[in-house]
Amino acid sequence: MSRSLKLAAVLSVLALPAFADEGMWLLNSFPAEAMKKKYGSAPTQDWLDHVRLSAVRLAGGCSASIVSETGLVMTNHHCVHSCVQDLSTPKQDFVKNGWFAKTQKDEKACPGMEINQLVEMTDVTKQVQEATKGVDDAKFNEVQKAKLAELEKACGTSDELRCEVISLYRGGRFELYKYRRFQDVRLVFAPEVAIAFFGGDPDNFNFPRYDLDSAFVRVYGKDGAPMKMDHYLKWSSELPKEDDLAFVVGNPGGTSRLLTVSQLEFDRDVKWPAGLTRLSELRGMLHEYAHRGAEQQRHSEDTLFYVENAIKAYKGRHQALADKAFFEGRVAAEKAFRAKIDANPELKKQYGGVWDSISATEEKARLLRKSYATLETTNSSELLGFARTLLRSGDELPKPNGERLKEFSDARLPQLKQSITKKAPIYDEFETMMLGWQLTKLREELGADNAVVKKIFGKQSPEALAAAAVKGTKLKDEKVRAALFEGGKAKIDAAKDPMIELARLYDADARAVRKQWEAEVEGPLKKQGELLAKANFALNGTSSYPDATFTQRISYGTIKGFKDDTGDYRPFTTLAGAFERHTGADPFALPKTWLDAKSKLLLETPFNLCTTNDIIGGNSGSPMVNAKGEVIGLVFDGNIHSLGGEYGFDEKLNRAVAVHSAAITEALEKIYGAKRLVDELRPAGAAKAGDK
Amino acid sequence: MSRSLKLAAVLSVLALPAFADEGMWLLNSFPAEAMKKKYGSAPTQDWLDHVRLSAVRLAGGCSASIVSETGLVMTNHHCVHSCVQDLSTPKQDFVKNGWFAKTQKDEKACPGMEINQLVEMTDVTKQVQEATKGVDDAKFNEVQKAKLAELEKACGTSDELRCEVISLYRGGRFELYKYRRFQDVRLVFAPEVAIAFFGGDPDNFNFPRYDLDSAFVRVYGKDGAPMKMDHYLKWSSELPKEDDLAFVVGNPGGTSRLLTVSQLEFDRDVKWPAGLTRLSELRGMLHEYAHRGAEQQRHSEDTLFYVENAIKAYKGRHQALADKAFFEGRVAAEKAFRAKIDANPELKKQYGGVWDSISATEEKARLLRKSYATLETTNSSELLGFARTLLRSGDELPKPNGERLKEFSDARLPQLKQSITKKAPIYDEFETMMLGWQLTKLREELGADNAVVKKIFGKQSPEALAAAAVKGTKLKDEKVRAALFEGGKAKIDAAKDPMIELARLYDADARAVRKQWEAEVEGPLKKQGELLAKANFALNGTSSYPDATFTQRISYGTIKGFKDDTGDYRPFTTLAGAFERHTGADPFALPKTWLDAKSKLLLETPFNLCTTNDIIGGNSGSPMVNAKGEVIGLVFDGNIHSLGGEYGFDEKLNRAVAVHSAAITEALEKIYGAKRLVDELRPAGAAKAGDK
Repeated sequence: MSRSLKLAAVLSVLALPAFADEGMWLLNSFPAEAMKKKYGSAPTQDWLDHVRLSAVRLAGGCSASIVSETGLVMTNHHCVHSCVQDLSTPKQDFVKNGWFAKTQKDEKACPGMEINQLVEMTDVTKQVQEATKGVDDAKFNEVQKAKLAELEKACGTSDELRCEVISLYRGGRFELYKYRRFQDVRLVFAPEVAIAFFGGDPDNFNFPRYDLDSAFVRVYGKDGAPMKMDHYLKWSSELPKEDDLAFVVGNPGGTSRLLTVSQLEFDRDVKWPAGLTRLSELRGMLHEYAHRGAEQQRHSEDTLFYVENAIKAYKGRHQALADKAFFEGRVAAEKAFRAKIDANPELKKQYGGVWDSISATEEKARLLRKSYATLETTNSSELLGFARTLLRSGDELPKPNGERLKEFSDARLPQLKQSITKKAPIYDEFETMMLGWQLTKLREELGADNAVVKKIFGKQSPEALAAAAVKGTKLKDEKVRAALFEGGKAKIDAAKDPMIELARLYDADARAVRKQWEAEVEGPLKKQGELLAKANFALNGTSSYPDATFTQRISYGTIKGFKDDTGDYRPFTTLAGAFERHTGADPFALPKTWLDAKSKLLLETPFNLCTTNDIIGGNSGSPMVNAKGEVIGLVFDGNIHSLGGEYGFDEKLNRAVAVHSAAITEALEKIYGAKRLVDELRPAGAAKAGDK
Repeated sequence: MSRSLKLAAVLSVLALPAFADEGMWLLNSFPAEAMKKKYGSAPTQDWLDHVRLSAVRLAGGCSASIVSETGLVMTNHHCVHSCVQDLSTPKQDFVKNGWFAKTQKDEKACPGMEINQLVEMTDVTKQVQEATKGVDDAKFNEVQKAKLAELEKACGTSDELRCEVISLYRGGRFELYKYRRFQDVRLVFAPEVAIAFFGGDPDNFNFPRYDLDSAFVRVYGKDGAPMKMDHYLKWSSELPKEDDLAFVVGNPGGTSRLLTVSQLEFDRDVKWPAGLTRLSELRGMLHEYAHRGAEQQRHSEDTLFYVENAIKAYKGRHQALADKAFFEGRVAAEKAFRAKIDANPELKKQYGGVWDSISATEEKARLLRKSYATLETTNSSELLGFARTLLRSGDELPKPNGERLKEFSDARLPQLKQSITKKAPIYDEFETMMLGWQLTKLREELGADNAVVKKIFGKQSPEALAAAAVKGTKLKDEKVRAALFEGGKAKIDAAKDPMIELARLYDADARAVRKQWEAEVEGPLKKQGELLAKANFALNGTSSYPDATFTQRISYGTIKGFKDDTGDYRPFTTLAGAFERHTGADPFALPKTWLDAKSKLLLETPFNLCTTNDIIGGNSGSPMVNAKGEVIGLVFDGNIHSLGGEYGFDEKLNRAVAVHSAAITEALEKIYGAKRLVDELRPAGAAKAGDK
């Protein structure tokens, strides 16, 4: 952690002031004055509205952008990796070999993919906070959940619309977001994983980088034709240079910059160590599982990718908190903030107790975490996930909207239905391993003598239980799942499906611990979060940005290298650099298509670039645009220093990493023969590789 | 962590007062007065000398005891697990099926096993501290090392003697320990792993327990005959009862109860998270590796056992430090202690700065840890370990004794030679996996662009490098290793062995980072530790016990159950309980021998027991004796609460777990037909199962 981040930690108190290029800003609250002060210019609200409508979200957890009038959408390869794997077969491995639809008719539907375009934002803070006013801790979550379900339903959720109330500033502000929902998304282009993820895990979260981590999908309408788009991003008409302004528009998944010290302690001492321990074991297992054979490798490699990616991210976050100076800075900042609150009798009366309340709630969280995580939130088996969703849908859907578990509220049904009925392959052997492992961990975490464990296992071993459930279940067939979902509780119970019966064995226990968690941890933290946000507004006003929430944000910055104890790095790499880094051994082996096309390529074409934009996981696939709003890059990563971005931002070191737009078109044209895409992306006159 | 441990943390300051049954006492500094006060009696020095000479150490990391006049030694199955595996073949799996030498002639030599009997202890504090007086930080380690090597050599180290200077109280006191060394150790009896480790990882570190974690080996003399012993422990003549006194004599491996807060922070934030992450990945890999086939399972299962055992131990230690109240207690205790030092101008002048110095050294440790661990201290490949030892022995042995790396000092040569020339099978496939993984981690930790990484890999992948080195090396043959070790540098260089050449590739880098670590971390910590110990002696006197150092200690306590939030546990289990817990599915499947013998067994025979003795890893295999010095049990574990014993002891909850002596003889006689052993252990008149 750098000195300046430590300093930021000391100074920032709770206000998240816009230090340098720090900030993941709401598109309806852009800090135009601050940006003008630093850079002499700032976007207009029209410009912001245009990029808001052009940048979209993959509901599964990535960002993307519309890049043509006919529904072409650009995102990262790693954001469509699962789709590419789902479309592959033992004979056609598109992950390994890449895929390009020669004609628009060849474009293939991605199972379960949903794209959201944010069309409207409405402030509903007053309605939400009124509803929970004076409600006690234990009921807080329940009352708020019912209110949000009501607002979302009234907003008009349907197959075409998705409405979500977003909690900003951890309860300080609520906005109702209305999205257009697209559920017919088809794969257009994906390169070989060897170039999308060139350098593999060793290079992940590093820069310099040489990755074509890009892919294209297309949004289709109900009529089965490509969707016509009113807003889309144009390809840049000139190549960007060092120090040029860059904007990133996307959906950062979450940050923890507003957490109190006791919450940071929970993350440092409990959350990340537990997560790293669990995922590392899974990593080792998956790595070795691939030795069972080529097919097993193919079935598991997307999971391994996500696991390794998460491990690296968790490590970075844990390290930020393990940095003594950084942590001491946060302690000092909180102390200073509390002193200010305590100095004002009125503020002290309203907010003075909030830190101790949060600390006491975190103690509860420490006690409940293990059983809550083990029984309710952790799932490594797709089939068991389906089983639980079906089982619970039978119980939940007959209830009034506001009383259901929140994932079964009316506003969430279209996506829930899509996810459960998606047509994607399931691999018995892989599922058996994953479920067996999950059950082994369940027994390990709760202990062999725990009553729930005894109920689940009886005299069986985790492996035998998993093998029998995977073998016997009919849930591998999406039609069976669809029929059960539609059929409701009676059909689901009558099915006597072994996977559903396995889920049923401990569903009541899982629900009980969830209820306790929501009453004793989640609800109180929401209530306390609202108070903390109000204390912050009272002292610092509302000009700062809220923690990220996987909703649309914009960050501004410039194209800039960085210097750390390993070297001094320029902001651009070139295609030539990839050939220099090629060793022939995975993960440093370029695909044959690249080696074959080398002589045709303009090797000085910029390949990847890095910028000072403040991003985090969820921003993957975000478009990077210039001041004109034209695409200059495709964000796919941050450098190693950016991992601490969960807790703080340091302009000297944190960098967003993107594929350069010129590399995308150069590769599409000269390596992949994808002229129809290049023409769609880059109308006459747009900049090309080799332009000065 | 219980309330009383928190209290202990608050009160204990740095003095480790003998709270209740807390303490791993030196056998030449037994707190007889304190024990008498609590229990009305205490052992005499003669009694202590007798048990000191009867209890022995397995140099590889366990404890044991001599239990017959003809050299029979009792220890845990898990302490000889590697030997049992080494003696197995694809056709004779002694780990799975157990092993009993029907006659003394059938006893089989355990490769690389060394047993030490502590025959003499001499205080050398003055010599050691004089040698380093006034020496500056960077040279401290080197000067002290030379002095220790000199003292050890002068003591007369040979094939028959092992001399070691032990640093007690982290530098406050030094003792020269003289051991008799036994290197011909033969396996006599080991049960099936299924009963030695019944309950497997789920039950590990838990009580109630049902494990026959016992084994017998025998010490042989140079004449090839069983060694005649002057001191040995007799089998108990009566069955122990709840609340009876119990002593444990063994070699606790290490505790960290004297660490300062900045050192505890290092453990909490760096050491355990890094260790858990690494070992968890290895765990997942090994677990899945066993799916390659029965042979692969057989080759890897002892490693998996050690890894899972370590993970559980690390988790417990991390959790102790992650407990906020416990940690805050340590912070308060240190503050109080510093205040006392600061209140006395003379003490303040001498010791007032030591905490800040340690804190600054810990910051250095944080910076250097990754490269030091990666290049120098972490090794998962047996062949690479041999290669490095050979390479370095060529460079080190020609140097004067005091200037060598400490593991090459004259006093350490007999064990070094034994370990490198031991005849034990090496499995190419397993080695290739382990070495490939280690190299992958090396690249991950240091980064693909690190100069050392580039030097090691060139254009090769870790897997290819590992496969080639394992395939090409001749070091699998112990005769080749012995010849190279004897041949010295010229022979070692001339061999051009690919494994040695791999070690050579980064040996200079590994040595450099070690040198830096010793100069900037290890040396300063030793120097500061000496000051801290003196500060402690100045305020609290010398009546307390030092942190554990894998040297002989005695702990006293009583046979007692415990009560925690999962239940109220009695101190004994019975053989009947094992049959009740049997499910038929691993790890809860009793061996066939047990199921077959059930009707012959006295099922009410006590099986395992728990006591308030203060123990920790390294105590495995320790004899548990009654006030008469007779064997009543064999320590093999602690309960889950004992894992926090690294940092503190809580008599309410911490328990040592042992196999009851009656269960051992009952099983030997009725299940294993090992009458010759029972007769050797239990002369006429000794207590038997069923006695009241």
